[in-house]
Amino acid sequence: MPGNTFGQLFQVTTAGESHGGALTAIIDGCPPGLELMAKDIQVELDRRRPGQSDITSQRQEEDKIEIMSGVMEGKTTGTPILLIARNKDARAEDYDHLKNLYRPGHADATYQAKYGIREWRGGGRASARETLARVAAGVVAQKYLREKFGVEIISYVEQIGDIKADLDYRKVTKKEVESNTVRCPDKQAAKEMVKLIKEVQAEGDSLGGIIRGVLRKIPTGLGEPVFDKLPADLAKAMMSIGATKGFEFGSGFAAAEMRGSKHNDVFCASDTLPAGRQGCKIKTCTNHAGGTLGGISTGEDIHFRVAFKPVATISKEQETVDKEGKKVKLAATGRHDPCVLPRAVPIVDGMAALVLMDHYLRHKAQNL
Amino acid sequence: MPGNTFGQLFQVTTAGESHGGALTAIIDGCPPGLELMAKDIQVELDRRRPGQSDITSQRQEEDKIEIMSGVMEGKTTGTPILLIARNKDARAEDYDHLKNLYRPGHADATYQAKYGIREWRGGGRASARETLARVAAGVVAQKYLREKFGVEIISYVEQIGDIKADLDYRKVTKKEVESNTVRCPDKQAAKEMVKLIKEVQAEGDSLGGIIRGVLRKIPTGLGEPVFDKLPADLAKAMMSIGATKGFEFGSGFAAAEMRGSKHNDVFCASDTLPAGRQGCKIKTCTNHAGGTLGGISTGEDIHFRVAFKPVATISKEQETVDKEGKKVKLAATGRHDPCVLPRAVPIVDGMAALVLMDHYLRHKAQNL
Amino acid sequence: MPGNTFGQLFQVTTAGESHGGALTAIIDGCPPGLELMAKDIQVELDRRRPGQSDITSQRQEEDKIEIMSGVMEGKTTGTPILLIARNKDARAEDYDHLKNLYRPGHADATYQAKYGIREWRGGGRASARETLARVAAGVVAQKYLREKFGVEIISYVEQIGDIKADLDYRKVTKKEVESNTVRCPDKQAAKEMVKLIKEVQAEGDSLGGIIRGVLRKIPTGLGEPVFDKLPADLAKAMMSIGATKGFEFGSGFAAAEMRGSKHNDVFCASDTLPAGRQGCKIKTCTNHAGGTLGGISTGEDIHFRVAFKPVATISKEQETVDKEGKKVKLAATGRHDPCVLPRAVPIVDGMAALVLMDHYLRHKAQNL
Amino acid sequence: MPGNTFGQLFQVTTAGESHGGALTAIIDGCPPGLELMAKDIQVELDRRRPGQSDITSQRQEEDKIEIMSGVMEGKTTGTPILLIARNKDARAEDYDHLKNLYRPGHADATYQAKYGIREWRGGGRASARETLARVAAGVVAQKYLREKFGVEIISYVEQIGDIKADLDYRKVTKKEVESNTVRCPDKQAAKEMVKLIKEVQAEGDSLGGIIRGVLRKIPTGLGEPVFDKLPADLAKAMMSIGATKGFEFGSGFAAAEMRGSKHNDVFCASDTLPAGRQGCKIKTCTNHAGGTLGGISTGEDIHFRVAFKPVATISKEQETVDKEGKKVKLAATGRHDPCVLPRAVPIVDGMAALVLMDHYLRHKAQNL
Repeated sequence: MPGNTFGQLFQVTTAGESHGGALTAIIDGCPPGLELMAKDIQVELDRRRPGQSDITSQRQEEDKIEIMSGVMEGKTTGTPILLIARNKDARAEDYDHLKNLYRPGHADATYQAKYGIREWRGGGRASARETLARVAAGVVAQKYLREKFGVEIISYVEQIGDIKADLDYRKVTKKEVESNTVRCPDKQAAKEMVKLIKEVQAEGDSLGGIIRGVLRKIPTGLGEPVFDKLPADLAKAMMSIGATKGFEFGSGFAAAEMRGSKHNDVFCASDTLPAGRQGCKIKTCTNHAGGTLGGISTGEDIHFRVAFKPVATISKEQETVDKEGKKVKLAATGRHDPCVLPRAVPIVDGMAALVLMDHYLRHKAQNL
Repeated sequence: MPGNTFGQLFQVTTAGESHGGALTAIIDGCPPGLELMAKDIQVELDRRRPGQSDITSQRQEEDKIEIMSGVMEGKTTGTPILLIARNKDARAEDYDHLKNLYRPGHADATYQAKYGIREWRGGGRASARETLARVAAGVVAQKYLREKFGVEIISYVEQIGDIKADLDYRKVTKKEVESNTVRCPDKQAAKEMVKLIKEVQAEGDSLGGIIRGVLRKIPTGLGEPVFDKLPADLAKAMMSIGATKGFEFGSGFAAAEMRGSKHNDVFCASDTLPAGRQGCKIKTCTNHAGGTLGGISTGEDIHFRVAFKPVATISKEQETVDKEGKKVKLAATGRHDPCVLPRAVPIVDGMAALVLMDHYLRHKAQNL
Repeated sequence: MPGNTFGQLFQVTTAGESHGGALTAIIDGCPPGLELMAKDIQVELDRRRPGQSDITSQRQEEDKIEIMSGVMEGKTTGTPILLIARNKDARAEDYDHLKNLYRPGHADATYQAKYGIREWRGGGRASARETLARVAAGVVAQKYLREKFGVEIISYVEQIGDIKADLDYRKVTKKEVESNTVRCPDKQAAKEMVKLIKEVQAEGDSLGGIIRGVLRKIPTGLGEPVFDKLPADLAKAMMSIGATKGFEFGSGFAAAEMRGSKHNDVFCASDTLPAGRQGCKIKTCTNHAGGTLGGISTGEDIHFRVAFKPVATISKEQETVDKEGKKVKLAATGRHDPCVLPRAVPIVDGMAALVLMDHYLRHKAQNL
Repeated sequence: MPGNTFGQLFQVTTAGESHGGALTAIIDGCPPGLELMAKDIQVELDRRRPGQSDITSQRQEEDKIEIMSGVMEGKTTGTPILLIARNKDARAEDYDHLKNLYRPGHADATYQAKYGIREWRGGGRASARETLARVAAGVVAQKYLREKFGVEIISYVEQIGDIKADLDYRKVTKKEVESNTVRCPDKQAAKEMVKLIKEVQAEGDSLGGIIRGVLRKIPTGLGEPVFDKLPADLAKAMMSIGATKGFEFGSGFAAAEMRGSKHNDVFCASDTLPAGRQGCKIKTCTNHAGGTLGGISTGEDIHFRVAFKPVATISKEQETVDKEGKKVKLAATGRHDPCVLPRAVPIVDGMAALVLMDHYLRHKAQNL
């Protein structure tokens, strides 16, 4: 598969560029009978949409989704679901001066090197606009998992620049996440983050940060050893989002300094497994593991962190080169985000849902 | 694919348990004409082998590899290559007392929950012994990439417990890595690491750490947007190795606190692309990106870090539960490693090679 | 992959139902730099379009294709190509009386059994309308192969009912195929076929037949043993078209009665292989093999035959059952084809092209 | 996937050449808890084994299978199952004179052209010996399907040369198939077939024929539209067996001459679907469809026919060319079969089982 398809059984194929005709996803493998309407998807797209607040890009896109196939009378039929959102506010002319330039921190040079041709308008396929399709597809997975198992997928901003939220991941609610524009449930930190974003934007610069993902009420048994461990597929999903630089699962890098006697989560209580599954279902007092053992979900909360680099497009003047390798100066004038994290939260939610959904179907095929 | 196959075009399928008959890999998709002998593979297996030094498990395995197909008169033929290493020193009786126990930090409980049955001897498929097949397959990829492009794949131990090496990743050589048993090229740190490992082992406890991977002389253009970005597939590869808890690419988590004006790597020089590829090949003064932009290799060094948790098996007594959920005490008596990192270095090398090789073939199919 | 994706490296994913919003294909893996315009695709869609002549369904569909992504300034960019054709003349009300019926020879009952829900308007996803997306995607493959290698893909009607064309497959031209509405290059037989179709239509009945596919100027070396042999993938491609019942490659079923000494194609001449490929390129005097040996293309013409059953929808009254299993009478009143073969010719062309293109990229990845 | 893997969820990867170390299959995706012993597999391998009767090749191979992983205490564990059979009677020296020759009807020339190198001993990977691994893997699928659903898979020889059996496929039993060496349940025809085989062998020539496959007690709902229809995947499976030239499903090529009113199978009775599946389960009086509608199983018997060409290796002298294209004479002296069909019966059984099993798991994942 050439790279624009994610998942094996809940298979999502996306297409579309920043300034092309539309962004699209085909979902193949969605179980039949799921209630699905465009407005279900719209809610999440609105969380990702540019222009949603004063700390995001002012590009005006409705990101209006149409369901073109796979759904009849409000229910999925088991056949492929086509989701499409036409581009509206694509100002290709904003990018004319970039036609022969390579922007630092962007994929201009590598697309040119790889393909020998590149769509220079708004980053083409490398634009973050591509993630619209991920969010749209992710909604369908989230809806299924929520209705079937009560799965909760809650990502939130934990750090922007050097401002860190002080939160217990086990207690955060979706409502708290949505209570401010920066999507950080620590209200005090959120205020400081907004302030920092505005300051840095005024300087013509940009910020990075960290998003934490928390997945609750996860069925036991998800994850396929040895290569398709659940943390491995989550890592891939997150690191496939543009601008990500790191992924930690459970204890993460802190595990490097811990002793085994400390890191091992003690099995403090137990539960019964579903009929036909001999043995007990473990519960752990601590959760350094992050919700999996041997790559398979334990049923404990899954939690992970994703690091994002600062946005590459800045209005500060930078040195760069053109296609011939000649040095030139560049200062962005387009409509860019000073910090991508608030809009990246639903992307993390969506990708996590795609991983879980795919693994649920894979587990079901072989074992249930 | 149910989880034991890695890669699409350089496809590696592995089988085998800790105490089964053999460990195996089938490599399908290796280009024909590559010179390959068992001894090429043996060299790397010996780096992963238990019993290789006084800081590793004392299980005595030759890990002798046989090439059973796909090679004729010392050259690959383009047909599947079967690699097999029979288990020799499998003492199943060592595990009798674990038949009904769930070991903390291990996959016993999750395998039971997932499959309703588990191979309890030595962890079965969840054993680190599984990685033998990864290393063996990785050698074939490494050999091809080295002979074709001069690619260098050099992983090394950067941290064990709280002891951190002080190294410039751009300068480390393979010879330095192999100059001590702990595989840390900083000699002073290496000594301290060995000392710490022995101390902690004496306490019946275990250690984690961090391995850095460095990939040099990488062809430009590897990586398939949008989901199969090179860092995404490296993340998956590394996080699929047992005991890993985190992955950083390039600037990693430190990127969260940087400004865009600082993080963007300035294009300080340029080069020509191969014929037919218009545009210049960029070079960057810094390398926060880590060797890719938009998920596609720039030709700069690729560098990343992988966090390992401390080994779950410890001889200190721990609390745990049995299959019925009853509390029991457990103190390991088997032959386990106090710290997995020295032996994990060739695994990181091998997995990195598998990712690169697969992406090279994918890039070639569509673009070269 | 759940079934709506074809190919591995030239990967086509389709979506859409007979009476849904649109028919769509996403092509992922098309090499960059191919000139592609909507009108290139339109030509082939017009060959498949209903209402094109007096022997096809009179449903009025423009089948107007839009290229929504993956193409910039008339050239493919290496990113996914989205093709979309909106349904216009979908008269869902024509199907109201079928909501609770299972039509004989159709997939109504099996979709219901499989998914527990079915799109009953016009057959939903099981409608032949689905093949629009195959033809559209097939054009892109055909164009690439023609421009790169001069590959000619020529399918034609060889038999309808009991009327058989008398033709030498080695000599048929595309112009001859297009010289009559039934797409049979034997003019006399074509006339009789048209006459028969009209007669049978008047009787309220339908016809089947046989299409022959001929692929010329095929690169040597396509086909991946052991499972993905070229004839195997062509067989799958053809048998995945609705209404097909048989596939013969080269000598086909006649081979069963031949002796080895007769069937073996003598190597009557030889040619040189490209540089780096030792050995001679064979040519054969006869071509019972059909253009492959061991599943790999020899460079000789590939030829095969595909059997189609008579159209299941007939206006003659038939007995059938409703969803409750109660017997009912049914006589179709919709706009159906009396014989699908003339419109199926571009579908066979398209599917053959998809197979060849995918195998070319696969061969290139590993061997070229 | 480079071609040596079959199936998506019940995934079989094979390796091994005629004169290499061993033939192997790794089965990944087998549900846990299936009882499996080497002797279960041996039974079927013995049906495929050379030297089993006076009408097969006299190569002496035990074809002794070992289960090296994935099974514990006689039950599958859900982890990959490695099956291996070492080559014993591989007389590489028999093939010395073929090193520089291309045998007519064989893959020598195409392997050379594709890979630039070829394993010339006994056909290497292109040898029919490769099918050993298919049969071995097929047993596991057959066993699962039989125990879970009572599925019966019965293939038999229907024609050899011009001798045709007179049989009702609905009534044939496995016992009848095994009652003679040629595996044709029509006793009279079987005698004539054996006689013909011996005559033709004496002439130094070879024979082709037709095998029919019958699959009974098939669960309803198997098959994934639109590309992975059940008949499409069966066609691929059968046409991937060496020496096959044609595939017919249900009415097959005869459908070309039938009218729709005749071909449509009337729904003559009905049954109830499992709970949660609204609608009735159809039964048909006739079975031209062959057991599927729209590519999805109806629950009726599946039946198909596979045409085999006469064996390419004959002892009669033939003209051919060497690697330089020079004409040479060739008369086979090795141990070859005069007619492959009796030994091909378990291969057809095995491949059919692999298709069914994979589709069962795929159906289960999405729908059950």
